[in-house]
Amino acid sequence: MSVPKFRSTRLVVSRIFCSLLLLQAAASAAQTPTAQTLTAQTDTAQATAAEPAALVYPFLDTANSRWFYFSSAARPFGMVSLFPDTALNGEWGSGYRYDETTVKGFNHIHEWQLAGLSLMPVSDHRPLSAQQADYTSAFSHDNEQVRPGYHQLQLSRYGINVELTATDRVGFSRYQYQPGQPQQLLLQLGGVQGPSRLGHAEVWQIDPHNLAGFITNQGTERRVKPVKVYFHLAFSTPVQQLDAWRADQQFANVNGISGDDAGLRVSFNSSDHSVLVKAGFSYVSADNAKLNLQSELAGWDFAKTSAEAYAQWNQTLARVHIKGGSLSQQRRFYTDLWHALQGRRVVSDVNGQYMDLSGQSAKVRQLPLNAQGQPRFAMHNSDSFWGAQWTIATLWPLVYPQAATALGESLIQYGRDFGLIPRGPSGGQDTLVMPGVPTTPFLVSLAQKGLLHTPASELLPMLQKNHSEAGLMAKAGYEHYSASGGGLGYYLKRGYVPYPLPETESNYGSHRRGGGQTLEYAYQDFALAQLAAKTGDQTVASKFLERSQNWRNLFDAKTGFIRPKEINGNWRTPFDPLEYEAGFIESNAAQATWFVPHDIEGLAAVMGGKTRLLNRLEQAFQQAAKQDFTAGTAHAQEGHPEYRRTPINYGNQPSIQTAFIFAAAGAPEKTQYWSRRISDTVYSHLTPQRGYNGDEDQGLMGSLAVLLKLGLFQLSGGLEADPIYQLGSPLFDEACLQVAAERRFCIKTFNNGPDRPYIRQIKLNGKVLKRTYLLHSEIIAGGVLELQMSATATPQQASQ
Amino acid sequence: MSVPKFRSTRLVVSRIFCSLLLLQAAASAAQTPTAQTLTAQTDTAQATAAEPAALVYPFLDTANSRWFYFSSAARPFGMVSLFPDTALNGEWGSGYRYDETTVKGFNHIHEWQLAGLSLMPVSDHRPLSAQQADYTSAFSHDNEQVRPGYHQLQLSRYGINVELTATDRVGFSRYQYQPGQPQQLLLQLGGVQGPSRLGHAEVWQIDPHNLAGFITNQGTERRVKPVKVYFHLAFSTPVQQLDAWRADQQFANVNGISGDDAGLRVSFNSSDHSVLVKAGFSYVSADNAKLNLQSELAGWDFAKTSAEAYAQWNQTLARVHIKGGSLSQQRRFYTDLWHALQGRRVVSDVNGQYMDLSGQSAKVRQLPLNAQGQPRFAMHNSDSFWGAQWTIATLWPLVYPQAATALGESLIQYGRDFGLIPRGPSGGQDTLVMPGVPTTPFLVSLAQKGLLHTPASELLPMLQKNHSEAGLMAKAGYEHYSASGGGLGYYLKRGYVPYPLPETESNYGSHRRGGGQTLEYAYQDFALAQLAAKTGDQTVASKFLERSQNWRNLFDAKTGFIRPKEINGNWRTPFDPLEYEAGFIESNAAQATWFVPHDIEGLAAVMGGKTRLLNRLEQAFQQAAKQDFTAGTAHAQEGHPEYRRTPINYGNQPSIQTAFIFAAAGAPEKTQYWSRRISDTVYSHLTPQRGYNGDEDQGLMGSLAVLLKLGLFQLSGGLEADPIYQLGSPLFDEACLQVAAERRFCIKTFNNGPDRPYIRQIKLNGKVLKRTYLLHSEIIAGGVLELQMSATATPQQASQ
Repeated sequence: MSVPKFRSTRLVVSRIFCSLLLLQAAASAAQTPTAQTLTAQTDTAQATAAEPAALVYPFLDTANSRWFYFSSAARPFGMVSLFPDTALNGEWGSGYRYDETTVKGFNHIHEWQLAGLSLMPVSDHRPLSAQQADYTSAFSHDNEQVRPGYHQLQLSRYGINVELTATDRVGFSRYQYQPGQPQQLLLQLGGVQGPSRLGHAEVWQIDPHNLAGFITNQGTERRVKPVKVYFHLAFSTPVQQLDAWRADQQFANVNGISGDDAGLRVSFNSSDHSVLVKAGFSYVSADNAKLNLQSELAGWDFAKTSAEAYAQWNQTLARVHIKGGSLSQQRRFYTDLWHALQGRRVVSDVNGQYMDLSGQSAKVRQLPLNAQGQPRFAMHNSDSFWGAQWTIATLWPLVYPQAATALGESLIQYGRDFGLIPRGPSGGQDTLVMPGVPTTPFLVSLAQKGLLHTPASELLPMLQKNHSEAGLMAKAGYEHYSASGGGLGYYLKRGYVPYPLPETESNYGSHRRGGGQTLEYAYQDFALAQLAAKTGDQTVASKFLERSQNWRNLFDAKTGFIRPKEINGNWRTPFDPLEYEAGFIESNAAQATWFVPHDIEGLAAVMGGKTRLLNRLEQAFQQAAKQDFTAGTAHAQEGHPEYRRTPINYGNQPSIQTAFIFAAAGAPEKTQYWSRRISDTVYSHLTPQRGYNGDEDQGLMGSLAVLLKLGLFQLSGGLEADPIYQLGSPLFDEACLQVAAERRFCIKTFNNGPDRPYIRQIKLNGKVLKRTYLLHSEIIAGGVLELQMSATATPQQASQ
Repeated sequence: MSVPKFRSTRLVVSRIFCSLLLLQAAASAAQTPTAQTLTAQTDTAQATAAEPAALVYPFLDTANSRWFYFSSAARPFGMVSLFPDTALNGEWGSGYRYDETTVKGFNHIHEWQLAGLSLMPVSDHRPLSAQQADYTSAFSHDNEQVRPGYHQLQLSRYGINVELTATDRVGFSRYQYQPGQPQQLLLQLGGVQGPSRLGHAEVWQIDPHNLAGFITNQGTERRVKPVKVYFHLAFSTPVQQLDAWRADQQFANVNGISGDDAGLRVSFNSSDHSVLVKAGFSYVSADNAKLNLQSELAGWDFAKTSAEAYAQWNQTLARVHIKGGSLSQQRRFYTDLWHALQGRRVVSDVNGQYMDLSGQSAKVRQLPLNAQGQPRFAMHNSDSFWGAQWTIATLWPLVYPQAATALGESLIQYGRDFGLIPRGPSGGQDTLVMPGVPTTPFLVSLAQKGLLHTPASELLPMLQKNHSEAGLMAKAGYEHYSASGGGLGYYLKRGYVPYPLPETESNYGSHRRGGGQTLEYAYQDFALAQLAAKTGDQTVASKFLERSQNWRNLFDAKTGFIRPKEINGNWRTPFDPLEYEAGFIESNAAQATWFVPHDIEGLAAVMGGKTRLLNRLEQAFQQAAKQDFTAGTAHAQEGHPEYRRTPINYGNQPSIQTAFIFAAAGAPEKTQYWSRRISDTVYSHLTPQRGYNGDEDQGLMGSLAVLLKLGLFQLSGGLEADPIYQLGSPLFDEACLQVAAERRFCIKTFNNGPDRPYIRQIKLNGKVLKRTYLLHSEIIAGGVLELQMSATATPQQASQ
């Protein structure tokens, strides 16, 4: 198995064992409370957290779902994420949307820029043409059960009960039809499925129990090349008949179908009215899809598979073990942790084959194998790493180091394949999502934490290339056909990227915002310098350290803000520090000014000293508090002309480090106060309507919420030789991280409470600590951090 | 070079040499008379034909063009057929349509189910979005020159003079822009191009002089899998800028583009205002497209390439050398011969690589090479062989044996690749065009004529498979996803294919016309029996000879017609022998009744003797003569409810053998009379409005016209061990066929004339011949056939 598995301690195993027994006895025993039942429960303080997976609230924020946001029948990082789609159109408005009233199919793959095969059981006597045109079914949340690894609902139009579970690469569905009614299943091979319009598809029958085929995700602005997704379907009962359609033609009694806008109806006649479907997937071939299916799910025991999926989630989530807090806080915490593991799914097969579409023609590639003949890691699909330095780059290495290694090595492997480490690989190609090279700090942090197989000396030139005119720093977002929108030439020559870039040269690419680009490049250059230093290459280190000071060229002493500069060297005028995207990426100058995570000393200096910096930051937080530190409660609201005029926004990545700048500037108590406020305000909800107040972005914001609640943060993104964690204000009485197979690091708080965010005393392994940060080595060694909490700030503690 | 070349005799060479000199002196010297100039010429009797290529009238029937019908800048069987498209939508209404007034691009590939890259030079200062939306240009036939291998016209909207020529796999364009005006070229990567909607495309810049990329022909009902066509473009002058669009977005200054509905504008700044573009093509890869370009067209001499193309056509056409007849007759004859060589173009590369898309994933395959390292033959794209037994199966082996071999071996090679010899291979897959297995008589005839490399013993089991339930005889037209529409099970069990086939089993596939299917299968079974006999396998021969008598099961003695039978064994009632497609394929019972080419004796017997047969056939011809032996003057008219109630139709394949049934039934003088009438009536026009009175179908009807005018025909399709040619009524005083490098077979007529269709005496090599047929061996040996013509029929001659 190439998908990372997380070994549990003996303690966790025994608990899981009980769960399995329970699950096998009654599949619905471990039912998660639904949105409806939650409010009826008493939100009492909890001692030890119950089974973590049982605490996950899958409906969180699902009224605002995007295609890949939700999850139910899926494994951690599994290729398959099978769930009902209540909306189909577009990347941001599709997937499982809580308030939509009909199911429009059950797609097996919900990933960044990718969809898979959508199945839809139906049951009536209408002709195929009518079913093809109108097949969606109403459903009710009242008859719905969701837990990690499992989903059940009823299609009220057809009287079909649907249950879903999955292994890594296989979706497993059970349909219970009404007695005496037709047993039908539609395969949707065309149309729009979330981010993709589906193009040419093929399906062919192998025998009465097996079909195989592929759909094609047509190219998008981001993932420009079409991607085939192969599948192999195995049915528990023989196919009675296949009927097909293509556009407005219907074909009776066929053995397959192909083309654009096609579909297939499979008819069964199961004596117990139940049909089980196993759907194996691969991006390489139908043969590999079959291999994946046979390797992962040979049998037909649905309850067992569902129980195993749940147990795997439970083991995975139990790597962070909490005590204390309220039931709501515990539930939200494990929901955040669960979300931290959503997305960035595996795209390689059990045999280590994967598809490379970066060149002229498709190449099937092979991952390196270990001594047991297993792939050493898996290849991942991934949205951007923009903001990863404050989210998954901290959380995953701490709690899921194997996943962090797999993702990092996957990026490097793509780099070898493509010639450049990608920004966001999807379908075997780079989507070029977002600006700059945010993979650099991610990979450097992994290198510093000893989590890469690839030696730093091999990685360094790959990163250097990406920071050159031949690399991604020269490209704007999605700039597939030129290399001018990154403005790197100007950055190298003049020390900043102008805003606007001259459209006489090119109008192509997104996020052509010179102010934001300059800040991000400077930080990424700093990260590269750290890796150069690690390899002993002082020349490269000096060069990029020097480039990392380019942020200074945009600091306008007169206004006190980072301010966009035009190509002629003039400040952009007029200047409104709260104007959205006026030179900054999904941000404004007020937020962006804080984006110097590698040089807070320098920022304080240009601002006139730490005191002035702290006062300004305090004012910004007080201002932002008035609208709950966000630009609205959902991604759809972020464009609101008033909401987005906020100086701090915890609903999107650009300013989520700001609460920890207090500590870096000598005021850790303010970090403790504001980070707790944010945790309580932004990441405390437990309803379908509100959750991340913006865009969760494939585990980024889930990770952030977990880190805030653990009270651990890496302002620099963990770039130091022994990476530093700033302490925030832990929420729970105890949070133990499984930092290695037999080692835990526990954060215990005493006298903690809703109004007691301040740390009065810190002890590490029994000894008082006179600083408010920890080193990576200290945490990974295992041990206990004991924090005495307080309702009032303690005068100046030692700071970083 | 894998494309067949035809060596000329010394005589022809010397004439060609003169042409080359003329052409090099002035590119327009060999200008073909246009439709306009024709009527002004005197249609006098001609002695020796002038340069054959100069006699070709390319505009013939172009008011009714379909996508692949026209040709100008192309070589015989060349992959590239570059010409202006005046209509773009659909297979049957697109290509060069004479009466359309605007040029909508210059596509390089016009083939059965395939389009290539369309280029469109433009020249104005409008923004790209405006050019993208509206770029077509008016043109006038007054400023247009077309000859085989060359096309010139002026785009009046832009003042651009366009000239086109080609090698086998390279299109060569010269654009002359107005001084001081923009020099722009649009690449159309999306939209509809004839038979194909284009899907995902990619273009990338290699250097200032070179671009490469591919377009994708999305799947159609016929060619169900998408087909990529790769190209490599070389420009005579450096690219100044590339701008692109995709859907409604425009991108300035890019180095490529990809996606659906995309396009590219290339801007130049050539000092002499002229831009030359060489476009190499391949179905395998962009690298192969480049290799094809470099191998075939290294230089930039447009006039030389154009002259070579013309010379190659001239050599090819000169393999039939005629004397006598009128200028119009000579022009029409060489136009027919030229059309006999259109379509069925090469799809393999100079290195012998070709694409096989028949399986789950694309496979690049390699043709066998000869001792010189050249491919032994080329792979061909091809529309159906339905009717080929009376057209190309006779003409090509006689005059173009290398082409016949290449096409035959290409079919067999596909058979090895696909598992079945295809009906109509396009884009490396079988389109399953039309019913039955019309490739069987084609291949058996080639085998009998000694024109296949593949031994008969290897071919036989391949054909047997195609005549079994596992083969194409089990499938209706385009029946890709089942094998029931062929009705073969019924044919084997009950001796006929019912009409209608039960739709409870399946409604899928075209041409599900049991009457026609039964007749065609019986004939094809007869062909297979001949091959079995050739290999000495009498068991197989007997089995298929027996099957070949199945036509008898549908002869209704009461009505005297072949009549459809229902599944229950009842005759289809009511029965109207002139009703179109009522159980017969693009035909009616009156026409179809004659479709027993392998058993005229048997047909005469069931009709009550030869005299009754001859009387009925005579009546049918007299009836058909009233509407000129066709169902209208164009394909678009064939559906006319009255026209199609004809008992004989020479505008489509099903009854084009009928004139030669007279001879087979003992009345050769009637064959002479009616075949001459048809030749004079159906295939005598020389206008854009009328030419083949139906569908020329990739050389089929052109071949038929040539054969009628030569007075040679093969009623059985040439299946005999030494294949038999029935004599018709030759049109010219002399027609010499180049049957081998140093051997000619000349058909000379004496006292011939418009009203002298009858043959009074036959001499072969000086000896009187007492029969009205020749053997293949007699013709191939070379020699002279001398025919004394007469205005009156001579009493009974020897018949076959």
